Amino acid sequence: MRASNEPQRNTAAAASASLTSSDASCGGRVFATGAVSSNVCMIRVSFGELRGRIERVLLKLGLGHRSRLAAQLIAETDRDGVRTHGIARVPRFAEMVRLGRIDPRAEPKRVSNFGALERWTGHRGPGNLAAHAAMARAMALARENGLGAVALADTTHWMRGGSYGWQAAEAGFAAMCWTNTLPNLPPWGATTPAVGNNPLVIAVPRHDAAGRSAPIVLDIAMSQFSYGTLSAYRERGELLPFPGGFDERGDLTRDPAAIERTQRALPIGLWKGSGLAFVLDVLAAMLADGRATYEFPSDPLQEVGQSQIFLALAPSALTSMEELDRIAAGAIDFLHTATPIEPGHTARYPGEGTLRIREESLRLGVAVEEPAWKALLQLDA
Amino acid sequence: MRASNEPQRNTAAAASASLTSSDASCGGRVFATGAVSSNVCMIRVSFGELRGRIERVLLKLGLGHRSRLAAQLIAETDRDGVRTHGIARVPRFAEMVRLGRIDPRAEPKRVSNFGALERWTGHRGPGNLAAHAAMARAMALARENGLGAVALADTTHWMRGGSYGWQAAEAGFAAMCWTNTLPNLPPWGATTPAVGNNPLVIAVPRHDAAGRSAPIVLDIAMSQFSYGTLSAYRERGELLPFPGGFDERGDLTRDPAAIERTQRALPIGLWKGSGLAFVLDVLAAMLADGRATYEFPSDPLQEVGQSQIFLALAPSALTSMEELDRIAAGAIDFLHTATPIEPGHTARYPGEGTLRIREESLRLGVAVEEPAWKALLQLDA
Repeated sequence: MRASNEPQRNTAAAASASLTSSDASCGGRVFATGAVSSNVCMIRVSFGELRGRIERVLLKLGLGHRSRLAAQLIAETDRDGVRTHGIARVPRFAEMVRLGRIDPRAEPKRVSNFGALERWTGHRGPGNLAAHAAMARAMALARENGLGAVALADTTHWMRGGSYGWQAAEAGFAAMCWTNTLPNLPPWGATTPAVGNNPLVIAVPRHDAAGRSAPIVLDIAMSQFSYGTLSAYRERGELLPFPGGFDERGDLTRDPAAIERTQRALPIGLWKGSGLAFVLDVLAAMLADGRATYEFPSDPLQEVGQSQIFLALAPSALTSMEELDRIAAGAIDFLHTATPIEPGHTARYPGEGTLRIREESLRLGVAVEEPAWKALLQLDA
Repeated sequence: MRASNEPQRNTAAAASASLTSSDASCGGRVFATGAVSSNVCMIRVSFGELRGRIERVLLKLGLGHRSRLAAQLIAETDRDGVRTHGIARVPRFAEMVRLGRIDPRAEPKRVSNFGALERWTGHRGPGNLAAHAAMARAMALARENGLGAVALADTTHWMRGGSYGWQAAEAGFAAMCWTNTLPNLPPWGATTPAVGNNPLVIAVPRHDAAGRSAPIVLDIAMSQFSYGTLSAYRERGELLPFPGGFDERGDLTRDPAAIERTQRALPIGLWKGSGLAFVLDVLAAMLADGRATYEFPSDPLQEVGQSQIFLALAPSALTSMEELDRIAAGAIDFLHTATPIEPGHTARYPGEGTLRIREESLRLGVAVEEPAWKALLQLDA
């Protein structure tokens, strides 16, 4: 759901539309405006070329035959408009492989299990591959048991959390997954970081009236704005559309630079998101018998060993998909009847914008930021 | 977690402390200040008397032998300081029984199952009894399968959602449960209510250093402030400590009366909480094959037929409770090291304040609002 002033990565529809107009400062190439991460030149690359380039980089990094799946997940992230978590992350991934923090050959393995609950270790291999394997296993457990969960310890950054929600929902499963992170948010009532922004994903399978898979996928971190978003606003000289943290006087502020100075970003829902972030961390660490947020150093290049949960549920074990689709359609239709703040800008369900961006990406090419694209090509050089 | 300006029901420690001072306007009885719901005279009642009085009311309403458990759950709610959801709710419950909306004799029953996933119906019986039975069943499934879930359809208001989190965590299970509600929040980007505030509970079992059960229990609705909280601030002539909704001009405001006029309360995390509320509703309705938010009329007296999810996980199936306690202790200790905004007011984990209030309630008597107590006695007359 969004408003026109929502600075959210998943709602780049406005930006994508303006991609078709060229801008002189961009050397005649398309230029995006309006979205947070679009203060740079944008180009369009076919999905096949994008995936292929990423795959070559990952092959060089030593991921072997698994390079294809890992590249697919990254390319899909840009395809869906989540530019902060696609190729933009590949240079850091490469650097962490080079530093030995990520073992490109390590494969996830089951450590223990009881019924439909399993514990796995990622062995600090590529985080998106471990997460994909963990969700696939949770789905297999749900197929047998109605629901299933995999708690994954000692993994690395999963990149786009929503990937594993789409993975499950497109196969007919409802899913919930989350990861912990290094401490990057002050808990409510404090001024220094002590909880992570611990992204949470909830996905629901669904088909639209034409029978096409059109899942509902929520993918949210527990901070209202990421530091990447704050710096993008600051660079453009803009205020945030809503308060995003505290200034030096301890007041809520829309000034991104003030929040960067205090490092007091705001949790969603104030004390509520602070509590939610904490409990997601503890539950993930306990189920995975892995690291909790407090055990991570503050350097992102050393942020390895995360604990993650992958829970899959099989509603279709109890009800026909037609009935499930009827329930979802009723809720979506009702949502769309809410009076919009701006005429014509109907409230949207989580994932609704993604399908439009995806269609556009496949039709016109995936919109990528030119610096991120160039950085990828350099890794392939 | 809290700050001193947090207007949260679970953090009535300051109010409880001032209960020991008397106030003339209260007829010499104790008077609470500082907490949201304390603009009225408070009295202390022993837990046994409180539970007994509630039980007699429920017996009269026709709950039979189940009156004792239902009364226990309600009395525990006041004991833990959650005054908005304890005896304050009993008159409405009685009215709904009188109107035939709640069937006091209806018992929850299993409708279908597959593996560790079951679907139950509440038959519109007392909502707290159905929820308690559903969580008990989810725990039994988790004991056998590592995890288990019960989706409950056609139930009634569960009163305090946290009850079922404490129920699970004190028995050694991690748990997650949520309910949908009538539409009471505008989705992001809209001005009219189309999502519920769908409370979510996450509970984690834990023991403190002395070996006492001290779970971490988060219990949050998706609205930043309830309408009950807004009216309490308005009646005291106070501004909210943080923005709680939109005024007539569409700006965020701390003025509770303005939000009551627009009925545009704020979801936690703005677009994030709006999306979370929506997906919790759809997932609950689909798993339970029950009502979604859009199917509820706007009259709270007709808010029956909710869909709820009860998920239990058994971390101790894979790890010793000692190791689990070690992980939780590390996270809590780290949280407590964060620099407090106000010296001496350490950030707290979800549930931390509850244990203090509970201890005080059992030692001094449960603090109840005099009007709520009198209303209960009238139902017992």
